[in-house]
Amino acid sequence: MPRPDKGTRQKLIETAKTLIWTSSYGAVSVDDICKAANVKKGSFYHYFPSKQDLAMAVMDEYQSYKIESIMKPVFAADKPFAQQVDDMDDVIIKDNKSNLEIHGFVCGCPLAALGSEMIGEEEQAIRLRVEELFHECQKYMINAIASAVETNQIPHVDPKEKSEEVHDFLTGLMIMARIHNSLDGLERDLKPGLVRILGLNQKELVAAE
Amino acid sequence: MPRPDKGTRQKLIETAKTLIWTSSYGAVSVDDICKAANVKKGSFYHYFPSKQDLAMAVMDEYQSYKIESIMKPVFAADKPFAQQVDDMDDVIIKDNKSNLEIHGFVCGCPLAALGSEMIGEEEQAIRLRVEELFHECQKYMINAIASAVETNQIPHVDPKEKSEEVHDFLTGLMIMARIHNSLDGLERDLKPGLVRILGLNQKELVAAE
Repeated sequence: MPRPDKGTRQKLIETAKTLIWTSSYGAVSVDDICKAANVKKGSFYHYFPSKQDLAMAVMDEYQSYKIESIMKPVFAADKPFAQQVDDMDDVIIKDNKSNLEIHGFVCGCPLAALGSEMIGEEEQAIRLRVEELFHECQKYMINAIASAVETNQIPHVDPKEKSEEVHDFLTGLMIMARIHNSLDGLERDLKPGLVRILGLNQKELVAAE
Repeated sequence: MPRPDKGTRQKLIETAKTLIWTSSYGAVSVDDICKAANVKKGSFYHYFPSKQDLAMAVMDEYQSYKIESIMKPVFAADKPFAQQVDDMDDVIIKDNKSNLEIHGFVCGCPLAALGSEMIGEEEQAIRLRVEELFHECQKYMINAIASAVETNQIPHVDPKEKSEEVHDFLTGLMIMARIHNSLDGLERDLKPGLVRILGLNQKELVAAE
């Protein structure tokens, strides 16, 4: 019995990620992915029943990376909140720079771009998965905000509402970075925006640096 | 000589708008548009050399609507700034409700969704046009903010930077409204967010209502 070739599956995921991240789900066909990955169509369908299944695998892999490389280290419990915010700024800019190097474009938040593409009837499953993935990330921020409120590091706020405000703000900056294909807005506005929305004062930020 | 049929051109624009607004540019083919509009392909190419040209026409028409129905009336020079902000909130929510009725989905800012789809090499022209259209709308907000600063209606800010902050905030809310396919976030966060970012105080807002 032939062993499944994990290399091919991973190659399809990586190729689809680049193609979807730098254009859109709708613009990328199974043919495009197979051609770019140098994989035969029959082989594609051995690993993924459909383009949607492959996109789900791309999203899941990106989410694992986001949780392990961004959410968990940024919101590690032993750091002051001002430091967490500072790290969030650093890691988001670093992630966007890295995407620019890898894919040749500022990708912003590819999940937001993908989710916003999917409001029609046919691909509701992808949009709903984006919502779930955002919800999972938001938990880290809700906990961090709740803990910062409890320990008087920021003024009293509703952690869930405030985390949504932060998320809306991040999404806007990320989508505009994508549209302008530029890191300038992120580098200029990300940190002051987070500081303003979260009610951190500059003294705490300077102390954390 | 047969007269050009303006009805067909407009039908193609309307059909393409619905299809692109509720899914994506990449997912919609010339065939899809012709089928949905009940127009022959030869006829399509009589009016538009390519799908990109049709998308440009859709964007231009939407922009005219936005300038005439949103930007100009909202930022009419004879209104106090607090009233302008209040009207902006009203008109954005009304526009999203209307899109929900017409297209069956919360579309948020379709131009932001379209621009964020277009970061790859092939469709730079559309992304650059989105940037231009945003720039044109931003002028109204820059003027309104500059005038509000001059007349001490809000604290001193750089009008261009502040208008970008407002635009990033609006884009984030709109994209999230699109992803959640819900008006809830807009109805809850739009006005308080504008008030907070622009430094308006509640007294002025109550007076304007």
